[in-house]
Amino acid sequence: MLPFARVSIIGLGLIGSSIARGVRERMPTVRLTGHDADPAVRATAERVGLVDDIADGAGAAVTDADLVILCVPVGAMGAVAAEIAADLPADAIVSDVGSCKADVARALREALPDATIVPAHPVAGTERSGPEAGFASLFHGRWCILTPAADAPEMAVERVAAFWRGLGAEVQRMTPEHHDRVLAVTSHLPHLIAYTIVGTASDLEEVTRSEVLQYSAGGFRDFTRIAASDPTMWRDVFLHNREAVLDMLQRFSEDLSQLQRAIRWGDGDALFDRFERTRAIRRGIIEQGQDDARPDFGRVHE
Amino acid sequence: MLPFARVSIIGLGLIGSSIARGVRERMPTVRLTGHDADPAVRATAERVGLVDDIADGAGAAVTDADLVILCVPVGAMGAVAAEIAADLPADAIVSDVGSCKADVARALREALPDATIVPAHPVAGTERSGPEAGFASLFHGRWCILTPAADAPEMAVERVAAFWRGLGAEVQRMTPEHHDRVLAVTSHLPHLIAYTIVGTASDLEEVTRSEVLQYSAGGFRDFTRIAASDPTMWRDVFLHNREAVLDMLQRFSEDLSQLQRAIRWGDGDALFDRFERTRAIRRGIIEQGQDDARPDFGRVHE
Repeated sequence: MLPFARVSIIGLGLIGSSIARGVRERMPTVRLTGHDADPAVRATAERVGLVDDIADGAGAAVTDADLVILCVPVGAMGAVAAEIAADLPADAIVSDVGSCKADVARALREALPDATIVPAHPVAGTERSGPEAGFASLFHGRWCILTPAADAPEMAVERVAAFWRGLGAEVQRMTPEHHDRVLAVTSHLPHLIAYTIVGTASDLEEVTRSEVLQYSAGGFRDFTRIAASDPTMWRDVFLHNREAVLDMLQRFSEDLSQLQRAIRWGDGDALFDRFERTRAIRRGIIEQGQDDARPDFGRVHE
Repeated sequence: MLPFARVSIIGLGLIGSSIARGVRERMPTVRLTGHDADPAVRATAERVGLVDDIADGAGAAVTDADLVILCVPVGAMGAVAAEIAADLPADAIVSDVGSCKADVARALREALPDATIVPAHPVAGTERSGPEAGFASLFHGRWCILTPAADAPEMAVERVAAFWRGLGAEVQRMTPEHHDRVLAVTSHLPHLIAYTIVGTASDLEEVTRSEVLQYSAGGFRDFTRIAASDPTMWRDVFLHNREAVLDMLQRFSEDLSQLQRAIRWGDGDALFDRFERTRAIRRGIIEQGQDDARPDFGRVHE
């Protein structure tokens, strides 16, 4: 028994299109409707047959859905929710895939005061964007975090959980506030740091742009991948998870100052101690199946 | 015509063992001698047949070499050079693979005042260490930077360049000082940042270690790979490229403060502008063949 029969996806970027492809593959009887605010994206989705029906408006996309998933940048969630309010069936469940949850939960609740809302965040992605970047296996073995309000109907939460398990994800529940702290460190801070260092490298006077590219295999190239992520999505994440990000950033800056001081004063033991203890984290991630065990992420050397 | 007939490799870790395997594959007539200060590494190298002869001492390893490559942490270069001084043939060329060049050049010159020295730095690696981590294709398509002194014999520089081209690398020349500035930004700073953020994440009170591992696919896991690199090697890099690293770190911190301020004051335009311009760098790296063009570094999603 599938948890939903008619799924509507609003926003057909990397995540929306991956959900569509995953549903096609793993729940082929589900009727899929999609909408994107960008006519070019809608045309592409139509051309590649991403969903059964493409709607021209967000409201028209949800009229007979039993699950509506909002896959737009977190700053646009409230406006999109307001757009669908009049057309949303009373028994539909509304979910989303936003990377920060407390702000989004507030925006959805305000726009849809009577709807059943089960916010979700699949912790998965690549640096690509757009309707052709998605693929069905993106969520396999990744975690999807649900952050329902305390008064959300248990049955609705269970159905959304079953949907994500159906796409291959493992499901975890937490409060929106805890989610936002956890993701601030495992996702938001890493992106901010990566964007920063790529910017710093671009601005040097005496090291040329072409030297930065040429010698990037020394470590820099790893950062450029996540710094190639969608700028709109990430602007919104930082604006909507401000407190947690600023706190993590403060801690990071303190730790960096400590290492800076160790370098300045030639304190090799302090450096070694810091560098020694980070290997265990890598091992843990690989043991938990959250990264490729092959060296260099499995990059091809040929 | 091969540039060298008898190559001696001192230090059989990731880079030394990759050179050995590359020579075996691409220059099979070369006689290879190896030494490592660690008896366990020597035993492993012997067992896997990494080189033709394993020497018990660094001096014994170089007695009939025409190329000696020092593949030890940069802090150990001077001591190893002193160890081989008495046994080094007059016509041998001494090279190294250290990640910082000005300090190492001084140490080598001091220990070997009359030797022909051509320092080199192959910009390649993985997060693995030790004699079994190496592989022959590690240098294919990567850059190897030579930093000979102004008075180094041109013929010696050309032979070392030919050796690295033989291993599949592309060769570039620059001054040690410029090398150290370039690598400070493309390699040393990224490693320092990665070590720092992995440490910051380990120290949080209210986010558990297991949550950090579980949700690492949001970006954090990318940093854990380079933070799993050899702690001794990296301690030495920071101690021996201090000025350039501190300068890059200062610029990075200023840029990070600017983004921090934009987040605090909700300046979405400033964030978007910074995030928008980093994609071109990623594209350039891929166009230059310095990273995998596939999304997510080509990680397997199945």
